[in-house]
Amino acid sequence: MYGLIGKIIVQSEKRDELIRIILDGTDNMPGCLSYIICKDAMNDNTIWITEVWDSKKSHQASLSLPSVQAALGKGRPFIEDFGEQIETVPVGGYGLMKA
Amino acid sequence: MYGLIGKIIVQSEKRDELIRIILDGTDNMPGCLSYIICKDAMNDNTIWITEVWDSKKSHQASLSLPSVQAALGKGRPFIEDFGEQIETVPVGGYGLMKA
Repeated sequence: MYGLIGKIIVQSEKRDELIRIILDGTDNMPGCLSYIICKDAMNDNTIWITEVWDSKKSHQASLSLPSVQAALGKGRPFIEDFGEQIETVPVGGYGLMKA
Repeated sequence: MYGLIGKIIVQSEKRDELIRIILDGTDNMPGCLSYIICKDAMNDNTIWITEVWDSKKSHQASLSLPSVQAALGKGRPFIEDFGEQIETVPVGGYGLMKA
């Protein structure tokens, strides 16, 4: 499996709007086993996305999906910066869906 | 919902053993919607755990579960340090189980 833990810094007051855009664009991605969007509880300009894929290839392919491309296009103006992007190797747990 | 993204620094060569202990002790926790254990892809002494709970209360209650207490007891000797503990407010995504 392939995983990512990513931080996004959002333009002020735009977090909810960006979250809606991301949620809309990421609900049907082949090979995705988990994709969870979170607000940072302490910083109102920060979003965290934790992802698990059946392979790095599936993750890369998802970036070309029309729905993801549309979300990136719509959401880009609200993104101030990308913070840490931690690459992981998920090994198990609870909440890993079938690909 | 309540979430955590946590980093654990592991004694050298003990990561796989600690992962097994954590997996064994965390498979049946009331209120848990997602609990995923990952190796850091770049650092072989680091584990990441991403968690989603239906409430902070459920998370706190889980720490007293016999299985979690046993895992903490068994795993503690292999833990060198706890890194970032990021508190989040999960808002949605894919792979959030029913509580």
